[in-house]
Formats: sequence, structure tokens, C-alpha cells
Amino acid sequence: MGWMPVYGAMEIGGTKTLCAVGSSLDDLSEVVTVPTTKPAETLRSVIEFLRAESPDAVGIAAFGPLDLAGRRVGVTPKEGWSGADLVGPVRDALDVPIGLDTDVNGAALGEIRWGAAQGLRTFVYVTVGTGIGGGAIVDGETVHGLGHPEMGHISVRRHRDDDHPGICRLHGDCLEGLASGPAIEGRWGVPGETLSGTDLTMAVEIEAFYLAQMMRNLVYILAPELVIVGGGVSRLPGLLALVNRRLVAELSGYPGLAEHDSGFVVPPGLGDMSGLAGGIVLAERALDRAR
Amino acid sequence: MGWMPVYGAMEIGGTKTLCAVGSSLDDLSEVVTVPTTKPAETLRSVIEFLRAESPDAVGIAAFGPLDLAGRRVGVTPKEGWSGADLVGPVRDALDVPIGLDTDVNGAALGEIRWGAAQGLRTFVYVTVGTGIGGGAIVDGETVHGLGHPEMGHISVRRHRDDDHPGICRLHGDCLEGLASGPAIEGRWGVPGETLSGTDLTMAVEIEAFYLAQMMRNLVYILAPELVIVGGGVSRLPGLLALVNRRLVAELSGYPGLAEHDSGFVVPPGLGDMSGLAGGIVLAERALDRAR
Repeated sequence: MGWMPVYGAMEIGGTKTLCAVGSSLDDLSEVVTVPTTKPAETLRSVIEFLRAESPDAVGIAAFGPLDLAGRRVGVTPKEGWSGADLVGPVRDALDVPIGLDTDVNGAALGEIRWGAAQGLRTFVYVTVGTGIGGGAIVDGETVHGLGHPEMGHISVRRHRDDDHPGICRLHGDCLEGLASGPAIEGRWGVPGETLSGTDLTMAVEIEAFYLAQMMRNLVYILAPELVIVGGGVSRLPGLLALVNRRLVAELSGYPGLAEHDSGFVVPPGLGDMSGLAGGIVLAERALDRAR
Repeated sequence: MGWMPVYGAMEIGGTKTLCAVGSSLDDLSEVVTVPTTKPAETLRSVIEFLRAESPDAVGIAAFGPLDLAGRRVGVTPKEGWSGADLVGPVRDALDVPIGLDTDVNGAALGEIRWGAAQGLRTFVYVTVGTGIGGGAIVDGETVHGLGHPEMGHISVRRHRDDDHPGICRLHGDCLEGLASGPAIEGRWGVPGETLSGTDLTMAVEIEAFYLAQMMRNLVYILAPELVIVGGGVSRLPGLLALVNRRLVAELSGYPGLAEHDSGFVVPPGLGDMSGLAGGIVLAERALDRAR
């Protein structure tokens, strides 16, 4: 048995931040959860936990937008977080290599290593919750071009029975504006998970309509082998199966690949752990680069 | 000076097929053009030309859809071409390594080597003509996931002044259905290049509206550093500049990168030669793989 490095994994979400340590997903410690308040305060709690574990590297998967070149948060409506330095405070405290990527890129890395995308080369991880985001893996690597993808903000056609104006502060009725958790709550006056009966049926129908358009555009632009959809909204009963059926209708038999017919849109293999698993992968890569 | 391999480059388009030989784009021979009729007939003319030049490898950029694993044409409305073997006849005649990819992937490879995308890592080549297609390069490599992208078939919102049903035989009013050359001709009764005055202004406005939506979705899904738009329709006067302005409006300041503001949507650096240039790159890669 050789030396096994210990990695610290962080997932910084809009409302809570998770942290754990381990050499792999298989021996991960208990997960520490702290509320995401102000950057300094949130990072301080997590750093305190990490310092006691002496990890050899840390991987951070964080809500965006991120300025990945500057390794900090971009301009965000979340108070106090615009421009926040996510790496500096952790490095100052622990003096180890640190990897950083978006929460969805992290989740995609976790799913391809240990989850539902194992063995694939090209796939997309989508989250549908407070916001909508997506991380693409092409030939085994996350896509970083000019910044990072922001898949929630694509344009979609309206469902004919939907006259909700949309809640995106930038675009109004982009995909996130019409299909995120707050959009569902805006449309029905209550959170999606409390709907039932015909309201629930209609909410799932409208949600599937919008998400199937996203899947169609992903198929035609990226040709992924699979799309994983996580996040709170994805757990609406029957949603993902309906998204897959609507996708088949959207494609109209083109390109006619059997892989698209069913089981193309699936939940995460790692449940809520995709992002933290990605943190492990980001830490491992940071350590590899540092050597 | 070492030995310089000679490459044969072919671009098989829906109406004409181009062929040339050279060690690079810089010493390319005169281009031979033959009409794209039936597969055997079209390939025979080209093979005759190539045989006289004894190339060391051949690269083929062809209209799709392609079955890249089977190295043949997929199911296409073009009579006689569904399932056509594009590689076998050339290999039988010349007995050299052969590379095959879509016309737009070929054009993308040509543009990153010698054209407007030199030095970039992630960009998209789009063609707007008889059809609409796109080839994506991520980290220097063309994207091949489950098959290849078919970007013309993404869904778009309708322009409020456009009630044309769309000409896509599969989707009706997808992007290709509303913004390809035949869609413009269907809307106005004459080809786009013969329009003038207010008809031309309106046609360019509608076209820019649809293409800007495509650019927006490319930005949010792939985060490219640049988008090149070629093809006959792309030469409508003022179109690309208007697409860029409309894109800026579509993005609504998000993610707020200066690179998107102007000069983000550009014509090919190689004019009509992008595809043949890509043929050279495909041939070179086929030779490298064979060694």
C-alpha cells in the first residue's frame, strides 16, 4: 500500500455549503453542512473543519458565475458574493493546491468518475432548482471556453398555456426564467413540491415542455451520450420520464438514434453527492498539477 | 528538407463536390469541381483526378448526416445518398489512409489551422445556406459524442412578424426551417440574394433575429471564443454585423464579457476554402493515425 492523499471537497451552493474529506468517494468522511451566508464567514467555518483534517489538496465546486481565470466569484445577485475570492482564504489557511470549478462542472466530474456517466466520453449534467445550470464534459474534460457555460439562460419557446412573465432578472423568460423552482412557485403561488392533483399534472407538463427543448438543443449542439438532471425540481414525480418522451417528440426521428428513445435523461447516480464527489476530483487534479 | 506528404482533400456538398491536392493549404492545387449527382458517379470523377496525383492520404468533408462509425452517409433526403459508402471506393482505388468528417467539422478544422480561428481552443463554425449546420471545436478537437452535432435543428422563438410555416421536412419551423436559404425563398418567393429595398431590410432583420438566438444558445451551452458563420446566406449585406448586435441584446449583459460585444460573429477567414482546408487536415490526421 502506497501513500494515499487525503482530499478536501467543498460544494458552495446558494443556500448551503457542504464539505467533507476523503481519498475517494468510497471513504468520504461525514459531510459538514454550513449555511452560505457571507463569503468570509462561510469559508471560515469550512476552513476550520478542513484544517483539523490536514488535506493534501482541496477541490471547490461553487455556484456561479465564476471568474475562473481570477479564481473568484463573478457578478452575482447574491449579496456580498460578487468578486469574492474563493481560493485565497483556503490556500492561506492550509497551504495546499486548490482546484476550483462551477458546481455543475464539479457534479459532472463526480458523475463521470463514480456515477451515472461512468465510461462515457461526452455528456451533460444539468441541475434544475433555485436556478438552472449545466456542465458539459466533452472527450472526458469539462468545457471551458470563454468563461464557462450558463445553460440556464438559453431561449425557449413558450408553452401555449403558459403566460407567466418569467423570473430571470436578466432575460425574463429564458429557460431559468420559466422552468426554475422560483418560476414554478411564481406560476402557482406555492412551491412545486407542494402541488398535487391536476395542478401538479399541469406543472409537470409545462416543466417537461421546457426541459425537453433544452435536451433537444443539447442533442443538436453537443451530441451528448447522456444527460443527467439533478436538483430539487428534477424530483417532481414523473418529470424525467416525461422529459424523455417529449424529447423524442422534439427530435421528430432525427437523427434517429435508438439511444435517445428512453433512458437518455436520467437522475444523478450519486444523488446529492455529485458536487462533493466532483470536489474530490478537482482536488486530485490540483494535486497532480502541483507535482 | 524532409519528405512532404501530398494530401487529397474532398468537400462533398449537396450540389457540388470540390477536390484538390497539396501538402498544405499554401501549396494547394487548382480546385476541381464536379456536380454532386449519384455517389458512384460523383466519386468516380474525383477519384480519377486524385489517382493522377498519387496522394499519400485523403480527407473527406461531406454533407450529413453521416454515420461516422460506419464511415458512410446516414439517412438523407438527397436521392441515392442514404447509406452511401464514402470511404470504400476511394480506398479501393488509392489504397491510402482516409479521414472522414462532416462538412462543418472539416470547415472548423480548416479555420482553426489557417483561418479566422487560429490560436483559439474553443469555437463554432456555422454554415447557413441550403441547410444550416455547425461544427464545434472544444480544446482543439471536433466534438463527436453520440454521432455528430446537427445544430440547424435547434428550436427557436418566432419573430413576431414571421408567419412562415418553415421548410424543415422533420421539424417545420426549427432554425433551419425558418432561416436557411430555402426558408428565405419560401417567405419572399425569390432567393434572398435577389431581394432589395425594404424587403431585403426585413429579410435581414428576420434572419438576424433567428441567428442571434442560435449564437446566444451557443454562448450559453458551449462558451465558444468565437463563432464563424459561412455559407451563401451569411453574405446577405449587413447580416453578420446585425447578428452580433442582436446577440448583445439577447445576452442582456450576461455574462458581461467584452469579447461578445462586437467581432464575436465573423465570416470565415478562408472564404469558400474552409472545407477543402479541413480536408487537408483530415488527410494529415488519417496519415498520422496510420503510421
